[in-house]
Amino acid sequence: MEKDTKGITAEKDEFGEWFSQLMLKADLADYTAVSGAIVFKPRSYAIWEKIKAEVDARFKKAGIKNCYFPMFIPESVLAKEVEHIEGFAPEVAWVTHAGNKKLNERLAVRPTSETIMYESFSKWIRSWRDLPLRLNQWNNVVRWEFKHPVPFLRTREFLWNEGHTAFASEQEALGEENEIIGIYKEVCEKLLALPSLPGRKSEKEKFAGAVFSTSLEFVLPNGKAVQGPDFHHDGQNFAKAYNITFLNKNGEKEYVWQNTFAISTRMLGVMFAIHSDEKGLIIPPALSPEKVVVVPILFESKRKEIEEFVRKVEKHLPEERVVDWREHKPGFKFNEWELKGIPLRVEVGPKEVEQEQVVLVRRDTHERKIVNLSKLAKEVNRTLDDIQRNLFARAQKLVDHSLVEAESFADLERAIKEKKIALAPMCKNRECEDELKFKTSGAKVLNIPFEQPKNLSSKKCVICKSQADYLARVGKSY
Amino acid sequence: MEKDTKGITAEKDEFGEWFSQLMLKADLADYTAVSGAIVFKPRSYAIWEKIKAEVDARFKKAGIKNCYFPMFIPESVLAKEVEHIEGFAPEVAWVTHAGNKKLNERLAVRPTSETIMYESFSKWIRSWRDLPLRLNQWNNVVRWEFKHPVPFLRTREFLWNEGHTAFASEQEALGEENEIIGIYKEVCEKLLALPSLPGRKSEKEKFAGAVFSTSLEFVLPNGKAVQGPDFHHDGQNFAKAYNITFLNKNGEKEYVWQNTFAISTRMLGVMFAIHSDEKGLIIPPALSPEKVVVVPILFESKRKEIEEFVRKVEKHLPEERVVDWREHKPGFKFNEWELKGIPLRVEVGPKEVEQEQVVLVRRDTHERKIVNLSKLAKEVNRTLDDIQRNLFARAQKLVDHSLVEAESFADLERAIKEKKIALAPMCKNRECEDELKFKTSGAKVLNIPFEQPKNLSSKKCVICKSQADYLARVGKSY
Repeated sequence: MEKDTKGITAEKDEFGEWFSQLMLKADLADYTAVSGAIVFKPRSYAIWEKIKAEVDARFKKAGIKNCYFPMFIPESVLAKEVEHIEGFAPEVAWVTHAGNKKLNERLAVRPTSETIMYESFSKWIRSWRDLPLRLNQWNNVVRWEFKHPVPFLRTREFLWNEGHTAFASEQEALGEENEIIGIYKEVCEKLLALPSLPGRKSEKEKFAGAVFSTSLEFVLPNGKAVQGPDFHHDGQNFAKAYNITFLNKNGEKEYVWQNTFAISTRMLGVMFAIHSDEKGLIIPPALSPEKVVVVPILFESKRKEIEEFVRKVEKHLPEERVVDWREHKPGFKFNEWELKGIPLRVEVGPKEVEQEQVVLVRRDTHERKIVNLSKLAKEVNRTLDDIQRNLFARAQKLVDHSLVEAESFADLERAIKEKKIALAPMCKNRECEDELKFKTSGAKVLNIPFEQPKNLSSKKCVICKSQADYLARVGKSY
Repeated sequence: MEKDTKGITAEKDEFGEWFSQLMLKADLADYTAVSGAIVFKPRSYAIWEKIKAEVDARFKKAGIKNCYFPMFIPESVLAKEVEHIEGFAPEVAWVTHAGNKKLNERLAVRPTSETIMYESFSKWIRSWRDLPLRLNQWNNVVRWEFKHPVPFLRTREFLWNEGHTAFASEQEALGEENEIIGIYKEVCEKLLALPSLPGRKSEKEKFAGAVFSTSLEFVLPNGKAVQGPDFHHDGQNFAKAYNITFLNKNGEKEYVWQNTFAISTRMLGVMFAIHSDEKGLIIPPALSPEKVVVVPILFESKRKEIEEFVRKVEKHLPEERVVDWREHKPGFKFNEWELKGIPLRVEVGPKEVEQEQVVLVRRDTHERKIVNLSKLAKEVNRTLDDIQRNLFARAQKLVDHSLVEAESFADLERAIKEKKIALAPMCKNRECEDELKFKTSGAKVLNIPFEQPKNLSSKKCVICKSQADYLARVGKSY
């Protein structure tokens, strides 16, 4: 009669197997008949709702407004910006029929909405008074990747925000970068408890159609990097392709300056992967739909006393709590709630009733503590804060541990083999990036840290050995 | 230099033209290159966000959980429930290619998600302990209608909630109807200020695959009815098609009992159409992103005094306000804000500064009132409440005015000609519904009121003249 709540049977080292078991057993995702797409089950969707609410409140405060554009983009509209269409065409899902009727023109299911939004921007923007125009959408997009799908981390449909802004001057547009990256970074650090590696994308890896891209990169337990939220400065590339002009204060026609930015449900996968362990899910208390689970340890003779005491205990606990009254053995319940990642467990047995105390067990460290009822509320809050801090600190250690410096290609090769991220001198040459990928079977420039040594003159590109232009983060990536 | 903020140049009687001008000029929607799909501009999307938040909070309180399912549904999955696929197939948008590759199986862009969700339900539900399962999605759906599209009211892509629930018994499933219809009705009445006509759908008009459907119907100014939120009891129809079974407390296998329910962005169109007038948009204060606009009437000589006084005035106003400092004539500004539907206008000129007062003008009645600064906060709140109540009362009068009783087909015909909704005796015979539609060039049974006369024996079906089964609401509909 008991459900399958056996813990995860893979070590975290076998990342693929461990992660896929974690997703299914912690009730976060499920596969469907649609290849590469998953169900976001209520437990993961609730976390996405919280992330969304936090980002959205910050966007609104910054003056960015939400809207909604059609999900279908006619092929001719998608094709107007050349680099953009080249970047996305191989992954576009095409609608060709409606009912029994063949459409006159194929419709792309949006892989991103630049093209359809900018058609409207070119109608809406007339003068400098209409600028800045700062819009955002929370929606679903489709990128039909042919690589092996992984829940949250690589799915053909995912959820995200896409911010699209237009400014009267390059300087104003550039000024948005810190604001947006700051919002994403803060949400990742404070809520997801994840330290990130911010930096510029290389020429090869930047967004299709952008002048430059900035990303936050994260490191998974298997040593692979994942790109998180990003920000793209598009200059006037799209403005020229979609004819988005305005009359400036002198009555002269100019093209607008544009940015786009996004955070996606991929971050759920990053967060689940980094914090969790072999017993199951670990999630930061700030995002956990339930913060505390109370497990009464029922002895028939003491049942009434325990029930009464639990009701008293509940008064000292946050609203986001569950009490597990089911007829299962305590060990079974402990395992199940650990698997599901509830940050704190409160155990109440006859001894606790007698002494007006409870046993508090942390999900992250498994530390047990006896807490008197009178101090429970304070201790619970303090511990939840401490778990949040500890998860961030642990994740920071992982990042620190995985970063190594490389001076030569041999250093770099060793780092990649050891599943590390290398900080390596490189030149801007696109061919060096291609060669890097080829010689390492897939490693690439993740991004280029904003902080660079003052003097790079002694640094040589690890590929072509000519003068390096920067130190780049290099590694394998999702 | 001034933007086109001319009021609407059509009378409300020319509904189509009036409504389409209203949508564009009040900055609510725009057309795109995608036929039948619109942009939800920030001003309408913000209202949808509020409606969504209110409904969502009530769902969560009821124990319904949000989740997200893939938007693509393989043709074979969609086809498992026969009536369902027959109902939706003519309007399905089909994805046939990804990148350059033809897919092995066509994928439907969801017109609704029963089929893909119930595939998962059949995996997830094992025993009575897993029930009830009450899930909801907020997402986008596509129904490729070939009728003339109208912003919000009839668009090929729209946004909605879709609730999908499974229960162990028929009785429990039926018990959900009042709860859900109650939530939708309350939100429509209290927030959208719209009275509705609740009732059962006829056999012909019920949802494809349902045992019965319940709808809230609304009446537009052009006399046409629109179906608003609805609730469908599916009995065990989908459970049998998708094999959703559970072991009951006696260990016996049973099929679950299911419901589905939805509210969509169509309600934005209904609300805009019912409340607004020839001057432009009117929206209930409870949903208006901005509740008050302050228009300073600037005289250069008094500019400083007016600016100072406006800052004082602002302290007495709600946070959701705008102050219009632009260099336009007051009349221009009044028109623009009336067009955009801000519920209350505050005018401040030299005279007001002198006398420490303001002029308050209501959007709904155009009533002007002089209010002393010391009483402003209270008066603004009182007036906003009164506008909310007044809009509901006006809408109620429209409904009352449009409902007429019909005893015979002649009565019914006259009612339809006069663009009314008739309450007419009808029998359950599906052929009578077909004939009704044919003989009236398109009128249909909107729904069947829950409250019926105690004795129907004297009532004859207006079509076949045999014994009537009920009084039905009959009219033309979107």
